[in-house]
Amino acid sequence: MSNQRERAQQRVEEIAALPVYRDRNLALLTDLYQLTMMYGHFKAGRHEQRVVFDLFYRKNPCGNGYVIAAGLEQVVWYLHQLQFSVDDLAYLRSLDMFSEDFLEYLRDFRFRGDVYAVPEGTVVFPNEPLLRIEGAIAEVQLIESALLAFINHQSLIATKSRRIVEAAQTNVKHPGSAVIEMGLRRAQNADAAVFGTRAAFIGGCVATSNVLAAKSYDIPVAGTQGHSWIQSFPTELEAFEAYRAAFPENTVLLVDTYDVLRSGVPNAIRVGLAMKEAGQSLKGIRIDSGDLAYLSKRSRQMLNAAGLADVQIIASSDLDEYTIRDLLTQGAEIDSFGVGTRLITSTDCPALGCVYKLVAQQFGDRLEPRIKISENPNKVTNPGKKKVLRLYVDGAAVADLIALADEQYDPSEPLELFHPIHTYKRKVVQNYEIEELLVPVFIGGDLVYELPSLRSIQARVEHQLSAFSSEIRRHLNPHEYHVDLSQPLWDLKQRLLHQWRRSAQS
Amino acid sequence: MSNQRERAQQRVEEIAALPVYRDRNLALLTDLYQLTMMYGHFKAGRHEQRVVFDLFYRKNPCGNGYVIAAGLEQVVWYLHQLQFSVDDLAYLRSLDMFSEDFLEYLRDFRFRGDVYAVPEGTVVFPNEPLLRIEGAIAEVQLIESALLAFINHQSLIATKSRRIVEAAQTNVKHPGSAVIEMGLRRAQNADAAVFGTRAAFIGGCVATSNVLAAKSYDIPVAGTQGHSWIQSFPTELEAFEAYRAAFPENTVLLVDTYDVLRSGVPNAIRVGLAMKEAGQSLKGIRIDSGDLAYLSKRSRQMLNAAGLADVQIIASSDLDEYTIRDLLTQGAEIDSFGVGTRLITSTDCPALGCVYKLVAQQFGDRLEPRIKISENPNKVTNPGKKKVLRLYVDGAAVADLIALADEQYDPSEPLELFHPIHTYKRKVVQNYEIEELLVPVFIGGDLVYELPSLRSIQARVEHQLSAFSSEIRRHLNPHEYHVDLSQPLWDLKQRLLHQWRRSAQS
Repeated sequence: MSNQRERAQQRVEEIAALPVYRDRNLALLTDLYQLTMMYGHFKAGRHEQRVVFDLFYRKNPCGNGYVIAAGLEQVVWYLHQLQFSVDDLAYLRSLDMFSEDFLEYLRDFRFRGDVYAVPEGTVVFPNEPLLRIEGAIAEVQLIESALLAFINHQSLIATKSRRIVEAAQTNVKHPGSAVIEMGLRRAQNADAAVFGTRAAFIGGCVATSNVLAAKSYDIPVAGTQGHSWIQSFPTELEAFEAYRAAFPENTVLLVDTYDVLRSGVPNAIRVGLAMKEAGQSLKGIRIDSGDLAYLSKRSRQMLNAAGLADVQIIASSDLDEYTIRDLLTQGAEIDSFGVGTRLITSTDCPALGCVYKLVAQQFGDRLEPRIKISENPNKVTNPGKKKVLRLYVDGAAVADLIALADEQYDPSEPLELFHPIHTYKRKVVQNYEIEELLVPVFIGGDLVYELPSLRSIQARVEHQLSAFSSEIRRHLNPHEYHVDLSQPLWDLKQRLLHQWRRSAQS
Repeated sequence: MSNQRERAQQRVEEIAALPVYRDRNLALLTDLYQLTMMYGHFKAGRHEQRVVFDLFYRKNPCGNGYVIAAGLEQVVWYLHQLQFSVDDLAYLRSLDMFSEDFLEYLRDFRFRGDVYAVPEGTVVFPNEPLLRIEGAIAEVQLIESALLAFINHQSLIATKSRRIVEAAQTNVKHPGSAVIEMGLRRAQNADAAVFGTRAAFIGGCVATSNVLAAKSYDIPVAGTQGHSWIQSFPTELEAFEAYRAAFPENTVLLVDTYDVLRSGVPNAIRVGLAMKEAGQSLKGIRIDSGDLAYLSKRSRQMLNAAGLADVQIIASSDLDEYTIRDLLTQGAEIDSFGVGTRLITSTDCPALGCVYKLVAQQFGDRLEPRIKISENPNKVTNPGKKKVLRLYVDGAAVADLIALADEQYDPSEPLELFHPIHTYKRKVVQNYEIEELLVPVFIGGDLVYELPSLRSIQARVEHQLSAFSSEIRRHLNPHEYHVDLSQPLWDLKQRLLHQWRRSAQS
């Protein structure tokens, strides 16, 4: 264990040195109400009271059947270095809301709680805790806003990226068709660009145009020239030749500045043939506007007819999973896709709605489960300190079971599962294997989790998804995966609901 | 002038010390193709060639009739400190794409160009340059991606915020109804939260829940308690009492944790009456779920009946300009609105499409206008180094005129304007005043623009909008404001188009 802590520590220090994290202090990246609640608890002498909060979402984004969890690295960095600067405290003092003893408490504040989390790249479903935080109520409250912002953003973009990458994978003409992330200019500012690119890579993108993200995360970086390059030369051909001279090993030519079929492709063919003669090879052309289906098919014919069948065609221009799928249905001849705005902002669903709810609280020396009631039954929380078990039969994920943390299961015994609302829907699983999704990350404020590399997170996504049926993975009206409550958790929830009903009536 | 430069310099150093900027190095926040194009120009010995680029957008977002320009401060900070670190250069070297002499050139790189920009808070329209950048082609290219990301993001959120603030201003029951930005947890990461809050304030929000943004920009900060506060006490009343004890001057109570009308409001009334007796006053209640129209009206009645007519009602819960307007149409009794997700991500239109186009280029010793041709007539650019003139008659903005930079107008002479496409549509303006929208920001790399305070930017928005008619300002199907090309610019554009047509046919 101590070795593991050391490795975890070393690794987080590496991460903290990345340009995206270095020298940043986000202690005040919180909603004021977290600080007023902390202060209220502090004044009432209850700020050390132990609580458990779950971070989870209720609805899959973009019509998808699942979410790819991402953002834990950012959470770990944030909690690891969380500390108020002298400046922060001076600002809080200036608000004239907080007492000096509270500001002193903040000065010495460090995160000392426990965090359990699903590793990045895990496939998760509505109502499953992605993180479970246990600690003093004041500290658990402070961190809510930042944790939500990081997890909401990166999980959203990883999921959106996955959809786009899978659309590209339906390319029967060009198997292994790849997606390159190019969204920097339309991202919602710098962090959205850098962490969004990271998440896009988790979802399966193979490269990015964003140099800072590429440097930070060792992501392959891609890029050739824009229209202004072509425009800045007297003729398109001269522009192509000049680019080839600078990058003979990696010549990709943008062919849509003037006219794809009458100018761009013919000029690219001239360059391609000249390169062939010189023992070099033209790598590709890029089409960034117009009717990509028609233009790519005609371009492919022209290139092939010129003996340049190995020149790749890259397409970009407001693409997403729908347009890519549609282009491929039309037989477009595209080897890879550059995707910008609609990936980096997740245009059709730009926010994931993770929430952070109190599920247990210390009374005396024990943790008591708490429930959040709502008029809307979907918003009633699952009470208690919980774990998430994924059940596999012959390598296939058959159901997830949200259970109380202290429950034990013997996989050699048959287990009856039931739908948490429509309880008559039941199924028995046998000879199953259990994966426990929540793993320890911080224990008593000590980091015990060694942050994985981005590539291994990307690989985890592939491996995780391979256990799910195509009905759950499909993009349109996916089948709802079984996420059930264990009998003890279900009983507890019903008991608390009835208690509440009785107390409300009295 | 030298005094002005000194003040500009002092002010940018103040800005650079803000927590959102301090110690950040975004030199690599660019698309790789900017670097490959720079390198291509460098290898061809043309990297010092002087060019002019315009940054503009083509389509108003969210169905609005205009955009509020924002993000210039971030651009100024970025250009002012732009410099590659040893680390950055090592990374670029590792890509094995660039020669050592180019890396040396990058090592000494500083921005030395001219920037003209519309001040933040300016109302702008499609095709008007928001920034005009002139400099060596290599430097002007490098900065494209970051400039677009900053301006796209902040202008989008300022515009969206304005729409939401104006919806709240239709509140006849509660004139001066305010909007508080609360989107941190759903923002697309930390920068989107902080710079998004800044932009939201520009658009007219009066306060934020985001403490880091509030500290950075001296924005009023607001927040009380969340559901977890209420839940963490044995009863709602005890939770309310404990909050009052901590914040007797600023007691706002969240009333929807259990049941607004049967529990929340009655308990708030108990606290309100006790405060009244103690010579204090309950400031407000917040409703965060349910049917806000019904609940606010019933709550108002209950509060009034209890003699607590001055207790404010704050509403939040997935609000935007549409839901706010709809609530007010239904007679909702809401004093102020907390708006999160749909403001901070601009949910229905999460990206503004600013582009960055070459419009002039040095040949020999003169700048020649350049045009970008497109199959799509809307995408053909306006060539040449330009300025934007706003024409006012009796204080009302009647039209904008995009003109060549060296054109002169005498406002005492009648001026005939015409639609740039439908040229038969003409109107003559007389006795007008001219506002030149683009102001000098950098000259030869020297900052000459003193960055205004955020409050004065917010005030500029109000002042600017007061010059536009309600037909242009309305949210649904706004009237299209006249943005015309000057006769010399229109002639130039036609000449270049015909030249291109002739050369394409030859």
